[in-house]
Amino acid sequence: IASKLPNVGTTIFTRMSQLAAEAGAINLSQGFPDFSAPAALCDAVGQHIAAGHNQYAPMTGLPALREQVAAKVATFYGRAVSADAEVTITPGATEAIFCAIQAVVRAGDEVIVLDPCYDSYEPSVELAGGRCVHVPLALPGFSIDWQRMTDALSPRTRMIILNSPHNPSGALISRAELDQLAELIRGRDIYLVSDEVYEHLVFDGVSHVSVLAHDELYARAFVVSSFGKTYHVTGWKTGYVVAPPALSAELRKVHQYVNFCGVTPLQWALADFMAAHPEHLAELPAFYQAKRDLFCDLLAGSRFGFTRAAGTYFQLVDYSAIRDDLDDVAMSEWLTREHGVAAIPVSVFYQQAPKDLRLVRFCFAKREETLREAAEKLCAI
Amino acid sequence: IASKLPNVGTTIFTRMSQLAAEAGAINLSQGFPDFSAPAALCDAVGQHIAAGHNQYAPMTGLPALREQVAAKVATFYGRAVSADAEVTITPGATEAIFCAIQAVVRAGDEVIVLDPCYDSYEPSVELAGGRCVHVPLALPGFSIDWQRMTDALSPRTRMIILNSPHNPSGALISRAELDQLAELIRGRDIYLVSDEVYEHLVFDGVSHVSVLAHDELYARAFVVSSFGKTYHVTGWKTGYVVAPPALSAELRKVHQYVNFCGVTPLQWALADFMAAHPEHLAELPAFYQAKRDLFCDLLAGSRFGFTRAAGTYFQLVDYSAIRDDLDDVAMSEWLTREHGVAAIPVSVFYQQAPKDLRLVRFCFAKREETLREAAEKLCAI
Ligand SMILES: CSCCC(=O)C(=O)O
Ligand SMILES: CSCCC(=O)C(=O)O
Repeated sequence: IASKLPNVGTTIFTRMSQLAAEAGAINLSQGFPDFSAPAALCDAVGQHIAAGHNQYAPMTGLPALREQVAAKVATFYGRAVSADAEVTITPGATEAIFCAIQAVVRAGDEVIVLDPCYDSYEPSVELAGGRCVHVPLALPGFSIDWQRMTDALSPRTRMIILNSPHNPSGALISRAELDQLAELIRGRDIYLVSDEVYEHLVFDGVSHVSVLAHDELYARAFVVSSFGKTYHVTGWKTGYVVAPPALSAELRKVHQYVNFCGVTPLQWALADFMAAHPEHLAELPAFYQAKRDLFCDLLAGSRFGFTRAAGTYFQLVDYSAIRDDLDDVAMSEWLTREHGVAAIPVSVFYQQAPKDLRLVRFCFAKREETLREAAEKLCAI
Repeated sequence: IASKLPNVGTTIFTRMSQLAAEAGAINLSQGFPDFSAPAALCDAVGQHIAAGHNQYAPMTGLPALREQVAAKVATFYGRAVSADAEVTITPGATEAIFCAIQAVVRAGDEVIVLDPCYDSYEPSVELAGGRCVHVPLALPGFSIDWQRMTDALSPRTRMIILNSPHNPSGALISRAELDQLAELIRGRDIYLVSDEVYEHLVFDGVSHVSVLAHDELYARAFVVSSFGKTYHVTGWKTGYVVAPPALSAELRKVHQYVNFCGVTPLQWALADFMAAHPEHLAELPAFYQAKRDLFCDLLAGSRFGFTRAAGTYFQLVDYSAIRDDLDDVAMSEWLTREHGVAAIPVSVFYQQAPKDLRLVRFCFAKREETLREAAEKLCAI
C-alpha cells in the first residue's frame, strides 16, 4: 500500500514516553499529570455508569455539559454562546481540530501554521487535501512575526491555526496581536482554528486572551479546548469546540461521521463536577504556577538556561551551556538514557528548525516529589 | 461558509430518537440497549479510575486489550494476529471505518458500497476526495448481486465496504460470497473495509463468517468491530480494527492525528472483563436470539410481515398490509407519533431506494417488558 502520509512516523510523544519507560527515566516528555484527578470527578463516573448512562450521547454532546461550557465561556470571556448551536463536545481536542480542518479546508487550500506547532495540524491539513505554510514565531519570545505572516498570506490561504497558551513554549498571544491579525485578514475568506487547550494554565496574574473574547475573530473561528488538560484526565479524551452557529453546523457534519459522539458517562461526570466545583478553574493557575515555580527554583541550581513559562504545563530550557555539540533530539535521548529524565526536543515541532536551536521541553504537570527528583538529576549534570 | 458536505443533514438515528422523545414513544429506532451492561464491567471502570488510570493510553491501544482481541480472533476465526502489529483500539467503530477509508482512498478513487448501507460510509469517502459507487443488494434476501457488482468495478475502484451481519437487514455474508469476491478482485489494487460490529449477534446456530477467516481477503482488509455492541455499552465509544501490519501502519498514521487514542479506563475495564468473562461472548447469541424470538413471536399477531433477522439486533418488517400509501419515512413518523413506537426507515440507507420499499427497522436490544409493550402497540394497529 502506498502511504498517504509518507512523512508521518510515530509521534515524538509516544517515542519519548517509550524511551523513558525502557530507560527507567522520569518521564517529563509527553504532557500528562502523574497525580490524581479530583476524587469527586472520578467518583461521578462510577455513579453514572452504575445509573446506566452507558449508551450513545447526543451527537453534539450532552446538553448539561454543553451548558457548563457555555456558562464558563460567559464567565471567563464575557461571551454569551448558545449551548445548542455553538458548543460541540468531541472525543478530545485532537479530534476537534481535525474536524474543524476537514470542515473548511479543500484540495489546494493553504493553511498557515506558526512554528513550532503541535504535530497533528499538518497531517490533518494534508488529509483534507490542503498544504501547510509554516511561519516561524519570532525568537526568543515566540511572538508572531508580522512581516513573515503577511508574506505567507496568499489568495489560497483558507485557514490560520493559532495556539495560545503555546505548546511547547508556554508563550501567550496578546490582545494587540489578535487585533493585528483581525486587521490582516479582514475581508478575506479565512477561518481560524484557535487551539486553547491550556486556557486555564496561565500564570503570574495574567489572564488568558481567548479568541472567544474577540468579536471580529470569533465570527470566523473554531475555538478548541480540552477537559483532559483542565481536569487532569488526559486519558478521558474529551474536549470541545466553540464556534459560531454556521461553523458549528459544518464541523458537526464532519464530527457526526468521524466519531459520532463522545463518551457518555465521562460527559455526565464532567458536567456534574463543573457545576459543583467552579473553584477548580479558579484555583488551577495557582496550582500549576506552584509546580512551575518549584521546578524552576530547583533548576536555577543547574546549568540549564530558561525563562519561566507564561502558560501551559511545559517549561523550555536551553542546554547550550551543557552539551552544545548535541542537537535537541540527541540531547533529549541523552538526558533520558544517561541522566534519567525524559524531555521532548523542540525541533520536531518545526518544519525547518533554527539550526542553532538548543531547547528541550519538560512537562511539570507532576507531583512535587517527581519534580524534586527530576531536578536533582538535572542539577547534577 | 460553503459546505463541504452539502448533502449531509442530521443522521436519521438522531432525528428518530429525538422524535421518539418528543412523542413519548418507545424508542426502537436508534440501535442501543435499554438494559444494563455487565456489573463486573461497570465496576471495573470505577476501579481503574480510582487506581489512577486516567492519562493517555498508548496510541494503538492498551496492550492488555489488544491481546484480548487477538485471543478472541484466534478463538473465533482461527487466525493468529499480532496484538502489536495488527490490532488497533479506536474510539468507536465509526472512527475505525473513517480512518481506514482515509488511509487508502485518494481524490478520484471509487469505493463500492452495498446499499442499503450505514450512513457514515459515504461522507467518509467524500472527505477523502473519493466517490461512492452504490451497488444495491438483491432483495428480498439482501445478498450480493454479482452482475451489478461486476459492472460496478472500474480501474478507479480502490475499496469495497462490506458489512455482515448487515445493518439494517440482519443478513449474513456466506463463505461462498467471500470466495466469489476474492475471485472478482484478485490481482486488482482494491482494499476492503469489513464492518463486522455485530459479529457476535448471529442466530439459529449459524456462525459468523468473518473476513478474518479468509486468508486471501484478509490480506487486503481492515476488519472493524465494536465493544459497544458486544458489551452493551454503545456510549463508551470503543472499537477496534484488525488489519495486516502494513495496513495497520497506515491506519495508525491517520488515527494518530484524528484522535490519538481511546479512553484509558474503559480500555482497562474491557480488558479485565474479557479476560475474566469469556462466557459473555459464548452466551451472547442466545441472549439476543431470545429477544428476537420474543419480539417476533409477539409480532406474529400483527399485520406486519417479516422474516426473522439472521443477525444484528435489528428486525426489518414489511408494513404494506397496513399503510401501503405511506413511504417508509412517513411510516416511521406515523408509527412514532400515532402508535408510540419509533422505527427507522430503510430508504435512508440507500442512494436510490426501490420505489415500492415498504420496510422499517426495529431495534430489539431491549428489556422484555419494553419489547412486550412495543409489540402490544404494534399488534393493535
Ligand atoms: C497526545 S500525546 C501529546 C501530549 C501533548 O499534548 C504534548 O506532550 O505536547
Ligand atoms: C451512532 S447512532 C446509530 C446506531 C446504529 O448503529 C444504528 O441504529 O444503526
